[in-house]
Amino acid sequence: MYLNWVLQRAYLTPLRNGLTYNGQTWTFQELNDLSLKRARQLTTLDIKQGDRIAIMGPSKPSLVIMMYACMHLQCEMVMLNRRLTQDEIAYQLEDSEAMAVLVADEDIEKLPSHTTNYLFSTIEKSTETAIDITKEWSLNQTTSIMYTSGTTGFPKGVCQTVGNHQASATASVLNIGLHADDTWLCAVPLFHISGFSILVRSLLYGNKVHLYDHFDAEAISQNIMDGEVTHMSVVAVTLERILHTLEQRNAQASPKFKMMLAGGGPVPVDYLKRAHALHLAVAQTYGMTETSSQTATLANEDAMKKIGSAGKPLFFNQIRIAEQNDNGEGEICIRGPHVTPGYIGRFAQKEATIDGWLHTGDIGYIDEDGYLFVIDRRADLIISGGENIYPAEIENVLLTHPAVKEAGVCGIDDDKWRQVPIAFVVLKEHVQVEQLQAFCQKKLAKYKLPKEIIVTDKLPRNGANKLLRRKLMN
Amino acid sequence: MYLNWVLQRAYLTPLRNGLTYNGQTWTFQELNDLSLKRARQLTTLDIKQGDRIAIMGPSKPSLVIMMYACMHLQCEMVMLNRRLTQDEIAYQLEDSEAMAVLVADEDIEKLPSHTTNYLFSTIEKSTETAIDITKEWSLNQTTSIMYTSGTTGFPKGVCQTVGNHQASATASVLNIGLHADDTWLCAVPLFHISGFSILVRSLLYGNKVHLYDHFDAEAISQNIMDGEVTHMSVVAVTLERILHTLEQRNAQASPKFKMMLAGGGPVPVDYLKRAHALHLAVAQTYGMTETSSQTATLANEDAMKKIGSAGKPLFFNQIRIAEQNDNGEGEICIRGPHVTPGYIGRFAQKEATIDGWLHTGDIGYIDEDGYLFVIDRRADLIISGGENIYPAEIENVLLTHPAVKEAGVCGIDDDKWRQVPIAFVVLKEHVQVEQLQAFCQKKLAKYKLPKEIIVTDKLPRNGANKLLRRKLMN
Repeated sequence: MYLNWVLQRAYLTPLRNGLTYNGQTWTFQELNDLSLKRARQLTTLDIKQGDRIAIMGPSKPSLVIMMYACMHLQCEMVMLNRRLTQDEIAYQLEDSEAMAVLVADEDIEKLPSHTTNYLFSTIEKSTETAIDITKEWSLNQTTSIMYTSGTTGFPKGVCQTVGNHQASATASVLNIGLHADDTWLCAVPLFHISGFSILVRSLLYGNKVHLYDHFDAEAISQNIMDGEVTHMSVVAVTLERILHTLEQRNAQASPKFKMMLAGGGPVPVDYLKRAHALHLAVAQTYGMTETSSQTATLANEDAMKKIGSAGKPLFFNQIRIAEQNDNGEGEICIRGPHVTPGYIGRFAQKEATIDGWLHTGDIGYIDEDGYLFVIDRRADLIISGGENIYPAEIENVLLTHPAVKEAGVCGIDDDKWRQVPIAFVVLKEHVQVEQLQAFCQKKLAKYKLPKEIIVTDKLPRNGANKLLRRKLMN
Repeated sequence: MYLNWVLQRAYLTPLRNGLTYNGQTWTFQELNDLSLKRARQLTTLDIKQGDRIAIMGPSKPSLVIMMYACMHLQCEMVMLNRRLTQDEIAYQLEDSEAMAVLVADEDIEKLPSHTTNYLFSTIEKSTETAIDITKEWSLNQTTSIMYTSGTTGFPKGVCQTVGNHQASATASVLNIGLHADDTWLCAVPLFHISGFSILVRSLLYGNKVHLYDHFDAEAISQNIMDGEVTHMSVVAVTLERILHTLEQRNAQASPKFKMMLAGGGPVPVDYLKRAHALHLAVAQTYGMTETSSQTATLANEDAMKKIGSAGKPLFFNQIRIAEQNDNGEGEICIRGPHVTPGYIGRFAQKEATIDGWLHTGDIGYIDEDGYLFVIDRRADLIISGGENIYPAEIENVLLTHPAVKEAGVCGIDDDKWRQVPIAFVVLKEHVQVEQLQAFCQKKLAKYKLPKEIIVTDKLPRNGANKLLRRKLMN
């Protein structure tokens, strides 16, 4: 039996600041009061305790308060990625059977037509209905659902429970430490586990979140120089932009700044060295939606000694390498209380784990000192600006075009985004590449669009006729 | 599913120091290696995984290593208080059905004769038997058993599980924060939850324990002045001795020293003010054996504002006041993952909680800001130098004397120990008070001996003939 994080935090440290955005600050008491009000307004709109609802909006306080309101109501929140197309959103809404979408006014156009929705402004103007807020939560209760694709290309809705989030946050604090004045800069999306886990940690730790609704390299670098924030979550691309800004200004991180948590794929060694020169501590992490954020993190004290490593597991977690080759490389498997119990919708019957172990599909090894090295994210995964892109998802779209017979997608290096997808197609009838690109634009989020579509005679396949994506570029 | 704390800590931070005693220091790797060796030696002596064994010794590294060895073997450790008499120990051994006592050589005389035991020196000289150490622990597995008396006077063996200890340690860190360099001075007994919880926190946090086998006010005050330690657990009596030493030396706590955790009964306001003047942060706590250490703790920022309060519950815990009178005072009830699942031995059938709530018997109230004030420890409890003494236990001993017809015990104020017990007896035949005192000495630990035994005609009783201990002094 565990406690409603929002209520408990407001009870324990009501006057501490819990959120800052654009110069305005809210205490935990204020966040609690506002989210309780919002919960009563949602109740008027017939959203009930335990309902599964979807949420979409930019990373602004209104979204944070809406999420906390849903948490008060113990709703299962389907976190919609704002960058998806209407088709992609429609899939998630249909698969999750979310009863409605709570949507920021500015995002209403992103929703498929005929979607049951409540605008934030409508909710905020609604009358309030008195309700009993449950003070106790169960560990198995689903807090959030995030969609992540797999090798099939069909996104799977991953359940993240109270117990998952809590285990993740408490294991993390045993690794990185905690001080009451810590402030976490959040410029990663709240609909991703990277962003949402910052909110969870804020509630459990009593720390302030310094929120951005977009990545503002200048302002963020200034925060880091001034020591207004102590922690930040980055991906390689955003880390580089901060490094660049600091270098341009001939500036350094404030001694008050404690640590960058770098996730979403490997960080180039060169970036780590540049960060070191700027007195900017960077901890590389390895995590995913199915593990409610970090599974392993490299301590700063080891950053230069074990360069390129994702560190050791957090205290409650285990990592092992399955089916090792002669070099000890194999599939990374994860076990611990932070691992999802499973999926919803069409994948509800799929087991997330085998004997308690999550088989990630990622390839790595553990060195003689016990440090994890991730060699390759799960087969064929493309990481572009920190977003995961699954080739199969793009291939599936291309294959629905009447002129396309076969399709294969892989990632290529890109200066700005580290990687971008590129597509190869075998045609059954003539079509202009521009037509295929326009077709994809309707079906795929912008960041997933193939940078190039190349027409070819034949795709590389193995004996079993399985597409060999790694050979597409040969 | 959780992990073997000793193994996991040694894996994560092998080179960090885990223990210091008398100028010698051990890393977590060394503690793990030594305790694994000891576990293999215990195996040779036929102590098996999951056995219930008792353990007794002074607070020295040998005891820490023996405890960690038992944890590797997932033994249930019955923690014997070294200050008990042979009769008291015999009761606990009989009640717990511990298969043997692991005893420090210097404590062998304290054991009842014919007790199955293994001297530390015998174990340390034994050959090793190879075993598989279980890496995973279950939350419901009992780590430690500590005896605590109740109103009946028969000590009850309280189970403290992996989940209890882990919830306690993680909730505490969310309150007091954490830094890799934190060092906890332990001069409280390791057989008490106050001391054992320091070991648990050390393993979970990766912090060093600075261990003392007795309370050395001079050396400890020096550690605090030098900033060699950052945290310490005290009771009112030991806090006063440190304050006195610092005052005598005209010294202050080092700025590196972070916090005293003051438990085992209320701390006088005067002490808190003196500590404040010496820049010594003191956090009052409220905890007990049944809650595996702290349930509530007053943050230092509130120390002077809410003087006399035990603070708010830790993050995973709840406190409510049952059967409140008009002033809101009533019985303190506690709920949370740190609360014991129950007892062993003759109290195995007794439910520890009612609807998940532990009814402490302590009286208190929660003020308008949500802070707990403990007015009175559980009915008639005497706290002497931080040790709990239950009047009924002393009364039971007196009543076994052939000359005693009735007995009543209560606490009186004492300059040195805060409180000491005093006994009133009604005789059925003549006996010298000195004879009664000699009788008690054989049966009761020294700290439980009544300071005075007063012969009287009649004890105060209510209509139902229940002894009114609070009226004994009238």
